[in-house]
Amino acid sequence: MDEMSKSMKAMPDMAAMDMSVMQACMDACAACEQACTVCSTQMMDCSPACMNCADMANTMMRSMMRMQGMTPASMMAMLDACIAMCQTCMDECMMHADDSDVCRMCAQACQACMDACMAMKTMMMASA
Amino acid sequence: MDEMSKSMKAMPDMAAMDMSVMQACMDACAACEQACTVCSTQMMDCSPACMNCADMANTMMRSMMRMQGMTPASMMAMLDACIAMCQTCMDECMMHADDSDVCRMCAQACQACMDACMAMKTMMMASA
Amino acid sequence: MDEMSKSMKAMPDMAAMDMSVMQACMDACAACEQACTVCSTQMMDCSPACMNCADMANTMMRSMMRMQGMTPASMMAMLDACIAMCQTCMDECMMHADDSDVCRMCAQACQACMDACMAMKTMMMASA
Amino acid sequence: MDEMSKSMKAMPDMAAMDMSVMQACMDACAACEQACTVCSTQMMDCSPACMNCADMANTMMRSMMRMQGMTPASMMAMLDACIAMCQTCMDECMMHADDSDVCRMCAQACQACMDACMAMKTMMMASA
Repeated sequence: MDEMSKSMKAMPDMAAMDMSVMQACMDACAACEQACTVCSTQMMDCSPACMNCADMANTMMRSMMRMQGMTPASMMAMLDACIAMCQTCMDECMMHADDSDVCRMCAQACQACMDACMAMKTMMMASA
Repeated sequence: MDEMSKSMKAMPDMAAMDMSVMQACMDACAACEQACTVCSTQMMDCSPACMNCADMANTMMRSMMRMQGMTPASMMAMLDACIAMCQTCMDECMMHADDSDVCRMCAQACQACMDACMAMKTMMMASA
Repeated sequence: MDEMSKSMKAMPDMAAMDMSVMQACMDACAACEQACTVCSTQMMDCSPACMNCADMANTMMRSMMRMQGMTPASMMAMLDACIAMCQTCMDECMMHADDSDVCRMCAQACQACMDACMAMKTMMMASA
Repeated sequence: MDEMSKSMKAMPDMAAMDMSVMQACMDACAACEQACTVCSTQMMDCSPACMNCADMANTMMRSMMRMQGMTPASMMAMLDACIAMCQTCMDECMMHADDSDVCRMCAQACQACMDACMAMKTMMMASA
């Protein structure tokens, strides 16, 4: 691998990234996993989406703790997947938000996780 | 939600999908998770990428077992993330493939998982 | 730590263990995780037990792939937890075994996982 | 199943349990998973134990969020497994605690998780 492709592969300079944005994203993923796990036990229509979202949010959080094993390309794709999964879960839970406090809180945690993942993407593009 | 947007959101008709393609993809994800988990314990440079890939492959496999909780959009984004993560892990492990049989087998399992995820994408686009 | 306590802590000699028993246990855990994941999406009473069992079986499988990070004490405790969780899930699913093929298959996968974990315990005690 | 064995199987009355003890245990498991995940990327001898402990702590946390799918027997066995895995990880990390702040923090998170799991056991036995 030549130096050019190596530098293209490398993560944006960590020093140039705002670590508080990444910490906020890890916290939002952790909160999303927990809200989705609780919501999935209600045995409502949203349960499969909640289980999918809990697993994706956990995988996203862990990957941010293991950035040595990420490239910009895999990081961007993972963030997009987490955003899409949160959207699916939120859409399902919003259908029951009037009937279930747990669903409403789950939808809020999904929205917060999406927002935090989008902030990560914005920061990564700015520091690329 | 009107019927139009509902049908746009719905997964492609499961009857129209070749279930053997999905089963092959779940099997490839399971094999990838296991190869990556073993490889990660070698304490080589690839370990963090292997851990990330093991978690993503497991999340991908489980999500295919819970398709009630997926939309075409979240499914496509998850498949792209799994492909990107396998690529990152494979690139790392290929650097040690001459020195480590475990890394070579891990790279092969990542390649097989990527291929299976791409076949899923092709099938989903054909039946959309 | 003196040599005595060190040797007491060490895993039984891997050379003395029958690797086919461990491989069979990892396979049974993987099959159990998959059966439980599918069963959990049925939204029946057994779902929370199935989700718990899927996570425990995955954690058990991965730990057997990372034996460098296990002691006999933690291995025995994990096997006991996996056996107990499989028992709980099997008991729940057996209540619906007449109504649901998925529950019946899940209960069988739990039973097979329990049997394989017990075989691991027997082997470890014999080679201790 | 007669009423006697049914009541013996049932979880201790949730109303009689101090929910703050369970919440503290879930929080300690989450913190332990995160500390172990970070520590595992250091590529030191403790890494496999850290990965095992991260998975066990996550499984423990999720199971406490899905108590409908637990019995006293499986709960006790899971808590014992989590305690044993934290002990193994803490012992490994304490060997590097003078050289690595990350290992020292990981050992502290394991100790806190063990203490919280023991508090759960004490509470469950008192309310049984």
